[in-house]
Amino acid sequence: VNQPSRFERLAAIQKVAQIDAFLFTAPSTVRWLSNYFFNFETGPSPFQLLPAALIVQPSLEMHLLIADNEALPAVAPGFEMTIVPYSSYVYEKPLDFTQQFLDTLYGIISRLTIKKTHLGIESGSLPLAVFQFLTRQFPQAKFTDVTREIAFIKAVKDRDEIENIRAACHLCDIGQTALLKHTQAGLTELGLFSLVRLEMESSAGTRIPVMADLVSGTRTATGGGIPTNKVIQTGDLVLCDITPCLNGYWGDSCNTVVVGTANSSQRESFKRINEALHFAIQAVRPGVTAMEIDSLMRKHIGNFPHHGGHGVGTQYHEEPRIVPGNGIELAANMVIALEPGLYNPDFGIRLEHLVLVTETGCEILTKFHHCFELIS
Amino acid sequence: VNQPSRFERLAAIQKVAQIDAFLFTAPSTVRWLSNYFFNFETGPSPFQLLPAALIVQPSLEMHLLIADNEALPAVAPGFEMTIVPYSSYVYEKPLDFTQQFLDTLYGIISRLTIKKTHLGIESGSLPLAVFQFLTRQFPQAKFTDVTREIAFIKAVKDRDEIENIRAACHLCDIGQTALLKHTQAGLTELGLFSLVRLEMESSAGTRIPVMADLVSGTRTATGGGIPTNKVIQTGDLVLCDITPCLNGYWGDSCNTVVVGTANSSQRESFKRINEALHFAIQAVRPGVTAMEIDSLMRKHIGNFPHHGGHGVGTQYHEEPRIVPGNGIELAANMVIALEPGLYNPDFGIRLEHLVLVTETGCEILTKFHHCFELIS
Repeated sequence: VNQPSRFERLAAIQKVAQIDAFLFTAPSTVRWLSNYFFNFETGPSPFQLLPAALIVQPSLEMHLLIADNEALPAVAPGFEMTIVPYSSYVYEKPLDFTQQFLDTLYGIISRLTIKKTHLGIESGSLPLAVFQFLTRQFPQAKFTDVTREIAFIKAVKDRDEIENIRAACHLCDIGQTALLKHTQAGLTELGLFSLVRLEMESSAGTRIPVMADLVSGTRTATGGGIPTNKVIQTGDLVLCDITPCLNGYWGDSCNTVVVGTANSSQRESFKRINEALHFAIQAVRPGVTAMEIDSLMRKHIGNFPHHGGHGVGTQYHEEPRIVPGNGIELAANMVIALEPGLYNPDFGIRLEHLVLVTETGCEILTKFHHCFELIS
Repeated sequence: VNQPSRFERLAAIQKVAQIDAFLFTAPSTVRWLSNYFFNFETGPSPFQLLPAALIVQPSLEMHLLIADNEALPAVAPGFEMTIVPYSSYVYEKPLDFTQQFLDTLYGIISRLTIKKTHLGIESGSLPLAVFQFLTRQFPQAKFTDVTREIAFIKAVKDRDEIENIRAACHLCDIGQTALLKHTQAGLTELGLFSLVRLEMESSAGTRIPVMADLVSGTRTATGGGIPTNKVIQTGDLVLCDITPCLNGYWGDSCNTVVVGTANSSQRESFKRINEALHFAIQAVRPGVTAMEIDSLMRKHIGNFPHHGGHGVGTQYHEEPRIVPGNGIELAANMVIALEPGLYNPDFGIRLEHLVLVTETGCEILTKFHHCFELIS
């Protein structure tokens, strides 16, 4: 597909809105345009005002501001990016990272050499402290929020983004395969999750953030939840939704398996949900609306109390949302999760694949098979 | 100790600065004053502008704003807190959580019935979008940043906070005991970490954020790092710094063990670091300065390239920082980590305990023993 790259789409916004430079502060936007991923697994750093800030000029020259106590990323080939570390963690004197960050930011913005700077910003993630500093230093500066525009142009993925999502989907496959291998009566949900996560982290060679539902027995009826000490019993269903983040890009996948033998109602439900998933997959192609895909699944299995799917990228939930009423047309190189589910009072089943919209249909990015009854 | 509670200390700030209400937005501050902990392990939610906001009035009446798709906390006994959920995740219509949040916030602040509202804020975490909304709705409102004051009054812990930190320290003990039990040649660092984390999570009954250094062999020379696929070998040192977050409060602990038999240089280093740690522990008491404790450790083992310790609470690094030049006097009910280390070109050792400053000295909150050579 000969689509404009995300940098070209960004430049188009810049031109239309007459913006002199963007100041991006949402970690998902910074990752999208740079190759910098701040691992959020242990919360906000006490040595940083912000995980990172990215300044993008009309020339698409970029400056990435990050704390010097973080691992500095390599600049990817083809990126016109300068990495500007600022002094963050120190033990020999009082912490001063906020001022260091602001002073470094000042240095970059003042070099824009535009008297009345017009900055495109993300007002949901720009801290007041940064805004107040900028308005003091550049009293004539103008600020325009571009959050909506960014969300919209993120929906279609570039080739390098798709490769990142493929790698995250490979981790989903490893996790879902580990689920089939390790699920057995007597393990706790946490114990099973630990085995699944270890195989994923071993494949990645490092710790990775993993959002996951892993519930068993009647806990599946609510559709999900965090694993607990509940012991998995023979006859339990185990619902496992694995959403890993690898290098800042997410994968997504869900399977439901039975420990032992399913009853006919469970078997019938699994079959219908699997059909709904594959009807949706077969219907995905450019020009179809998100709501059509959503409705197709609900028609086959009845309504369920969540989205039929969603876009995936540097956030685990992006446009296009596959929900009732969303008239957005699918386009080539969108990446969407499809996840029909059915929840009875005593059990729930959800099945999910992540797919890449192609010129003529879609490619399933998660390669594992939805297998319900385990062969022991 | 008959100290003013954190609510009384906050009221004192309110009075001196003539603040009508506080609007807290930093998750660590929200947790400190309420019992609400947003688990950050999977990053910022795509369905929220902020994890939470807490409005505190002069009467110490509190309103906690959280997204209705999050688990609503129980109000702890003795808290005058109203939980105000706002509409966040929906699948039947477009997402509108930012406006829902702002409208709900407006409802609370407008009921303050003060014409010229003076709000105490945290400008490092208050998003510009919220500030702009408030200045539009309340043009006469005045805003004062109280970040520094909050950091200062957080250093001394209340009784319920200490109980929370004790519980987090118990998880440290479980993790450090699991380290002694499971460390063996042939495991990868990730495999060992998985066993350690599982025991901690099983004890908590749920997933918990765990910041951890777990490195082996020459990787210990740099003092830390995330576990990898490196296979642990006979003769390796394994350095394991376990920092778990339980219900929003952190614990902290570090041990270094040898797989097999240590050489005399390693044994001597371990002994000296352990001595430094216990000299520091013996010196801790109200009135001693942070820099004195720090200097005591450096004098015994030589300089090392990080802090000698730090306060711990709803952040894993708080005042009092145990660093050169910090003249802050220790006071009863401060909770501090002490962590002397020694790093040679071929191996590194760090030992850490978390202690509670008492009227006469300190109590070691982490109960595990620093054991260097494993009995196999």
